[in-house]
Amino acid sequence: MSEQRAGGSPRPPGETAPRHLLAVSDLTRDDVERILDTARALSRTLDREVKKLPTLRGRLVVNMFYESSTRTLSSFDLAAKRLSADTMSLRSSGSSVDKGESLRDTALTLAAYDPDVIVVRHPHIGAPQVVAAATDAHVVNAGDGKHQHPTQALLDLYTIREAFDRLDGVHVAIVGDVLHSRVARSLIEALAIVGARVTLVGPPTLVPWEIEEMGCSVSHEIGAIADADVVYVLRMQRERMLPGSAFVPSLREYTTLYGITPDRVRAGQVVMHPGPMNRGVEIDPRVADSPAALVTTQVRAGLVVRMAVLYDLLTRGPAGTSRVRLADPGGTAWNDLAIPAAPPLEVA
Amino acid sequence: MSEQRAGGSPRPPGETAPRHLLAVSDLTRDDVERILDTARALSRTLDREVKKLPTLRGRLVVNMFYESSTRTLSSFDLAAKRLSADTMSLRSSGSSVDKGESLRDTALTLAAYDPDVIVVRHPHIGAPQVVAAATDAHVVNAGDGKHQHPTQALLDLYTIREAFDRLDGVHVAIVGDVLHSRVARSLIEALAIVGARVTLVGPPTLVPWEIEEMGCSVSHEIGAIADADVVYVLRMQRERMLPGSAFVPSLREYTTLYGITPDRVRAGQVVMHPGPMNRGVEIDPRVADSPAALVTTQVRAGLVVRMAVLYDLLTRGPAGTSRVRLADPGGTAWNDLAIPAAPPLEVA
Amino acid sequence: MSEQRAGGSPRPPGETAPRHLLAVSDLTRDDVERILDTARALSRTLDREVKKLPTLRGRLVVNMFYESSTRTLSSFDLAAKRLSADTMSLRSSGSSVDKGESLRDTALTLAAYDPDVIVVRHPHIGAPQVVAAATDAHVVNAGDGKHQHPTQALLDLYTIREAFDRLDGVHVAIVGDVLHSRVARSLIEALAIVGARVTLVGPPTLVPWEIEEMGCSVSHEIGAIADADVVYVLRMQRERMLPGSAFVPSLREYTTLYGITPDRVRAGQVVMHPGPMNRGVEIDPRVADSPAALVTTQVRAGLVVRMAVLYDLLTRGPAGTSRVRLADPGGTAWNDLAIPAAPPLEVA
Repeated sequence: MSEQRAGGSPRPPGETAPRHLLAVSDLTRDDVERILDTARALSRTLDREVKKLPTLRGRLVVNMFYESSTRTLSSFDLAAKRLSADTMSLRSSGSSVDKGESLRDTALTLAAYDPDVIVVRHPHIGAPQVVAAATDAHVVNAGDGKHQHPTQALLDLYTIREAFDRLDGVHVAIVGDVLHSRVARSLIEALAIVGARVTLVGPPTLVPWEIEEMGCSVSHEIGAIADADVVYVLRMQRERMLPGSAFVPSLREYTTLYGITPDRVRAGQVVMHPGPMNRGVEIDPRVADSPAALVTTQVRAGLVVRMAVLYDLLTRGPAGTSRVRLADPGGTAWNDLAIPAAPPLEVA
Repeated sequence: MSEQRAGGSPRPPGETAPRHLLAVSDLTRDDVERILDTARALSRTLDREVKKLPTLRGRLVVNMFYESSTRTLSSFDLAAKRLSADTMSLRSSGSSVDKGESLRDTALTLAAYDPDVIVVRHPHIGAPQVVAAATDAHVVNAGDGKHQHPTQALLDLYTIREAFDRLDGVHVAIVGDVLHSRVARSLIEALAIVGARVTLVGPPTLVPWEIEEMGCSVSHEIGAIADADVVYVLRMQRERMLPGSAFVPSLREYTTLYGITPDRVRAGQVVMHPGPMNRGVEIDPRVADSPAALVTTQVRAGLVVRMAVLYDLLTRGPAGTSRVRLADPGGTAWNDLAIPAAPPLEVA
Repeated sequence: MSEQRAGGSPRPPGETAPRHLLAVSDLTRDDVERILDTARALSRTLDREVKKLPTLRGRLVVNMFYESSTRTLSSFDLAAKRLSADTMSLRSSGSSVDKGESLRDTALTLAAYDPDVIVVRHPHIGAPQVVAAATDAHVVNAGDGKHQHPTQALLDLYTIREAFDRLDGVHVAIVGDVLHSRVARSLIEALAIVGARVTLVGPPTLVPWEIEEMGCSVSHEIGAIADADVVYVLRMQRERMLPGSAFVPSLREYTTLYGITPDRVRAGQVVMHPGPMNRGVEIDPRVADSPAALVTTQVRAGLVVRMAVLYDLLTRGPAGTSRVRLADPGGTAWNDLAIPAAPPLEVA
């Protein structure tokens, strides 16, 4: 789909919403707005004492994680549980992967259990597509190599929209190792879909001029963040920080040139980071702990956005796709969220 | 029990069904038929949108896995969850095992939680018996050393019965490393119970003539599979494939002599494999992906057969054993499988 | 709190029960009695077929385990599940910890999910306090370095009270490596709160005279256990058993001098051990398997005591703390434990 149509352009009549969330480019602006609206509705349920919804009761969500990622795995797992789905998590360590089984065969095995959704994290680009081709389940890409991490982009959009009450025209400066970051790649595409403005900031080795082709401004001076509404700080990967790495002359120099310190953040700006933070490297602890930092807000957004994505896939797949049962007639007292059959979701 | 009575012969009057599933030889033909009938009834519930049954609600199934086996563990875990049981999984890595605790002490510790069923996977033959002796729980052997893997045998029987609508007289050729395979050992015994015919095929180092004593034909020529209804391909273990292993002259030669290629499979035959497959070693990818291959069917069968085994143990243990509560008077709408008190199970 | 007030002394009027269970010294005698009474009420529910209670349905209990401990983790996890809470377990291996994230940042991340309780196990003293300071959740210390393990102490008190029907004046001899044991430290404090008498027994390297300051008798002769009602045997840590360790001349000599053998246990005494046992080192297998040994009883006590602690924190936190919903008006048939709003808990 990303080959045929620019991400964000309206879906041609007759073309249904995608069965999967593999890349940001699969989404139209309508898709994005709908998912964010659903997430907002769901966020209101999290203020209740009993935070569980019966929406996906009896459904199976499988997490296939071929990379260590407690944050993302626990966020998806909790999102599924909060919707009352059953979950099954497979991690590469200790799995059949160790016995040399192919990704496709593992996907075929899982498919035999008729999961409703498979969430895939994999070091290789395109792994989620392999799983999608092998199964009838809805597939969500939870990060594939340096390629895509679409739910991270959606949770970032959600956080920005909650902070500024709009997305159109918001100016986001993304600072750091843009070149190797699937978080940056997905976010840049997502910001383009919703009409935000993007400036990329970092050393030429990590933010090459060619990236301007994605429709962003590029700067190698940290001062370029001054104009932004959002300073989005990327995590400096450990392997890039090793002495001898060609990307950064030294960690100290990187921090001096691009570290986000209190004096580089102006009033009114918010600071975001996908976590986990290297305090004292790409972000100063005083910034990380300041009210301007929305890092915890992002984590909370991750939960409701992933709930919304699961809900969206199971209710909006193309005709013939199994649809989630929206109401539970025999529900108990805690089943008090009346989810209407037609999105967008309204919370009673 | 296997010492006193040939597997499959009728149980003497007054002798109750066993509390545990430790070996295929614990089962009579009636036991096998009953479990397969229950599995078939349960399989119909898997076509529903909400696949969960309330049968074992409030029950505890503990998985003690001392070998890495994501496939078997996830199958048992999902089987228990689909029946609404709570599950607890202990793996050797990170457990008290690392502190040098004996299997018996670990079993005694678990027994203090009053689990209803303990599923045991262990590299040592007889480990499930140790657990059974130390606890009041029903114990299921999920693989002990090179000895037994009874639920694998039952799921294979289930798959064959669904394919041919009978078991009596079906001819199964088992190809590969029979000597070291608990899958083969359990399957041969199970096929004997139900009156199927077995031919074992492989090199003399892996299929010695002595195995004929189990009541099978033996051949060292791959052509011997031509007459079979089912070609059951065993996984070639990695350690047997190492250069210097005395069992196979070379991997290439093994594949040439015994690999299951399209031209070795005749129309009407089905091909089975316990997984994970070594594509290009014991099985040609074109066979693995052909309609004749029932590998995914076997995985699906594993789920319903394990559900059936859990159900069967909890409803048919000897008098005085805790019995599963069969109906949930206050059940909600999704609780629509009326499981009668008396097996065989009938799905409403 | 432990700095300001001796553990066990009555709480000043107006001071509320603590939000957390970080150390035994946080507890008054009333707190201890109330938790043990709740545990006893809950233990009666474990004799039922369906052992699950709806008390914490929709609540989230997060287990943060930075040390391998299957026993304690599974006990907390099962306690939460038996109360129908959702659980999420993070272990250090494979988590963001590996990416160098600080404990506080991990706690902040978890806090974004609004967990009701966080259970923390960590090799560093004070880690649970860090988590408590960073989140709104109730925090339970499940072992921090050599410092505290308060739920172990409570389950030991529970076991002793069930065996002797009182705690006041019971004489407990604690044998072994008192110096390095958080189990011993917590238990000594807990026994002081309830008015029990304590004698510590072991070699001078492991039971220094200074420990008498905690209000215990000290002896370096095993004969000193003769007078006790309870012989509490500590686990000999593997690192203390290594040749070259300065603490024990040799393992054989330790066993000869302090091992609990049948001839050292008199009629009427009970023997306890926190597990896992080194059979043949600190405890003779004949003692471990004798009716005098309450090791399995302790494990079972651990489950109900942890259920009681979760219940207690969620119902007795200071005003303004979110309170657990005590009754589920729409509950199903298995929801037949009427938990009254006012502790102590009465089982119908």
